[in-house]
Amino acid sequence: MVSLAIRAAQRQTRGSIDPILALSKDDMARVNDLILAMAGSNVELIPEIAEHLISSGGKRLRPMLTIASALAHGYSGEDHVKLAASVEFMHTATLLHDDVVDESDMRRGKSTARTIWGNQASVLVGDFLLGQAFKMMVEVGSLDALAILSAASAVIAEGEVWQLAAAKKMTTSEADYIAVIDAKTAALFSAATEVGPVIAGKGEAERRAMREYGRSLGLAFQLVDDVLDYGGNAADLGKNTGDDFREGKITLPVILAYEKGDEEERTFWQAAMETGQNDDAALLHAKELMQRHGALEATIGRARTYGEAAYGAAASLPPSPAREAMLGVVDFCIDRLN
Amino acid sequence: MVSLAIRAAQRQTRGSIDPILALSKDDMARVNDLILAMAGSNVELIPEIAEHLISSGGKRLRPMLTIASALAHGYSGEDHVKLAASVEFMHTATLLHDDVVDESDMRRGKSTARTIWGNQASVLVGDFLLGQAFKMMVEVGSLDALAILSAASAVIAEGEVWQLAAAKKMTTSEADYIAVIDAKTAALFSAATEVGPVIAGKGEAERRAMREYGRSLGLAFQLVDDVLDYGGNAADLGKNTGDDFREGKITLPVILAYEKGDEEERTFWQAAMETGQNDDAALLHAKELMQRHGALEATIGRARTYGEAAYGAAASLPPSPAREAMLGVVDFCIDRLN
Repeated sequence: MVSLAIRAAQRQTRGSIDPILALSKDDMARVNDLILAMAGSNVELIPEIAEHLISSGGKRLRPMLTIASALAHGYSGEDHVKLAASVEFMHTATLLHDDVVDESDMRRGKSTARTIWGNQASVLVGDFLLGQAFKMMVEVGSLDALAILSAASAVIAEGEVWQLAAAKKMTTSEADYIAVIDAKTAALFSAATEVGPVIAGKGEAERRAMREYGRSLGLAFQLVDDVLDYGGNAADLGKNTGDDFREGKITLPVILAYEKGDEEERTFWQAAMETGQNDDAALLHAKELMQRHGALEATIGRARTYGEAAYGAAASLPPSPAREAMLGVVDFCIDRLN
Repeated sequence: MVSLAIRAAQRQTRGSIDPILALSKDDMARVNDLILAMAGSNVELIPEIAEHLISSGGKRLRPMLTIASALAHGYSGEDHVKLAASVEFMHTATLLHDDVVDESDMRRGKSTARTIWGNQASVLVGDFLLGQAFKMMVEVGSLDALAILSAASAVIAEGEVWQLAAAKKMTTSEADYIAVIDAKTAALFSAATEVGPVIAGKGEAERRAMREYGRSLGLAFQLVDDVLDYGGNAADLGKNTGDDFREGKITLPVILAYEKGDEEERTFWQAAMETGQNDDAALLHAKELMQRHGALEATIGRARTYGEAAYGAAASLPPSPAREAMLGVVDFCIDRLN
């Protein structure tokens, strides 16, 4: 398989989300209108919280992928807009509940809804958005799309419960971790892209390709995020790194460093992740150990492999601006490391 | 309209859930099997919590009503079992999240899931059960049933957010309160019964009757619960009363007593509900004020009116054991007051 780097050179462009932004611009404007309308309620707290989430600067990658996947399969109706909004509502509901479960105070540099309005409102508004998501899906009327998205909804929650039960245990294996992010992150990416061929009336081969594209892209994204949280391979000490470490979140770089560590190193990791000895000195040591064992490099390797799989799946599409946009997202994901 | 009391005398039976228990026995055994199967997961915490909820002694009235409503319309397939299990999962998910939001430690005399496994697990397992509920609905394949149940899901959450925002405010009017229980309680009863004629292939008239039956029954149930929480009209001082009062839950008896109260009484209610001055002496005084202003009797009157409406809606059904079972549930609901 030709490497991403070579292909990027062939196209003489670096990975970028600009093509998908341009491709989905008009449809995403309608997605945004629909999101605002469906987050409306006479209960003032609901639009207040929804507005906070909407303005908090996510890239809205998932709904853009739904749009792109539908267009890549020649879809020309309006249902992709409703499904894209549903996907974003599912994601938003998950974030609201996640922040409650993780007791997070900040997300993307802004206060989380739970710190402003409380855990109670975050739980209930999440439930409301999920209900609205299902209402929109039902309006679309595709039982196949409903099956895909409702299954994703259960899988995401199951992954979260698993993580909760297994959290802060250094016995977590690489396979365990991949299973968790498969559920927590990749399942929604996969569902978001699989519904494209479904509403375009395509068959199982197209659905499988989009399932594979979304899943692999989701896994690659998560693993790149994990690496960036330790400052990337350069292991710099930038301000925005170390969040996972301080929260005791066991990610793949930690698992790989732990597996290669000696007795003393393992004791360090247990103290850091399981009993919260995670000050700045500990973070610095953690990064040193990751460097020593090539844990970030190895995680990047896994991310590139998943990126290749996503690339291969999208490359099976007939040539179109939508296909190029989806390929660009894969390169963008990996290029964040540079 | 002939009163419930007269009709009960005509049938020479008191209201009872025995007929619906007998009617739905075989189907409910399959509902229970399905519930256990769908609550299964490799993530051990999920079946553990689900088992706790399943064994905690609810009457399972909602899924029984789905079964009865389907049978009352001549339905003879298996989809009513899946929809009944979905309805129960939606209810269970709501209870899990409610207990987190209300910070409740006990439900039906047992510790709540959140006191045993924590708020985090309760939020996430609720999300999982909701996802499984939608998966089962999708398997049934009725877009009309999906529309009814997904709309109920959003309405329930919206009602909860409203209650959260308005909680502990003595400015809550009777109309406000009815709107809240319409959303929080009646919407699921209504959806549970409306899906019966839907899967039986009946039309809008039958759907409307079952919507009305479920809604009115749900409202009646909630209002009777509200009265029972103050010991019923006898205002006895039994051990299991006063929970709503101590939790500062503003229910209809409180609203009606407040509306008829003088300045001094209103000050008492504000102190009790808004600032938590709700010891046993305050509860006793609250019951005295309710007696003085006939607040419990008036609430019972509203409950009876809704009961009549439910009765009338079910009476429109062709005669069958299922119809008798549904009528029996209405009488049972009201007879709990005696």
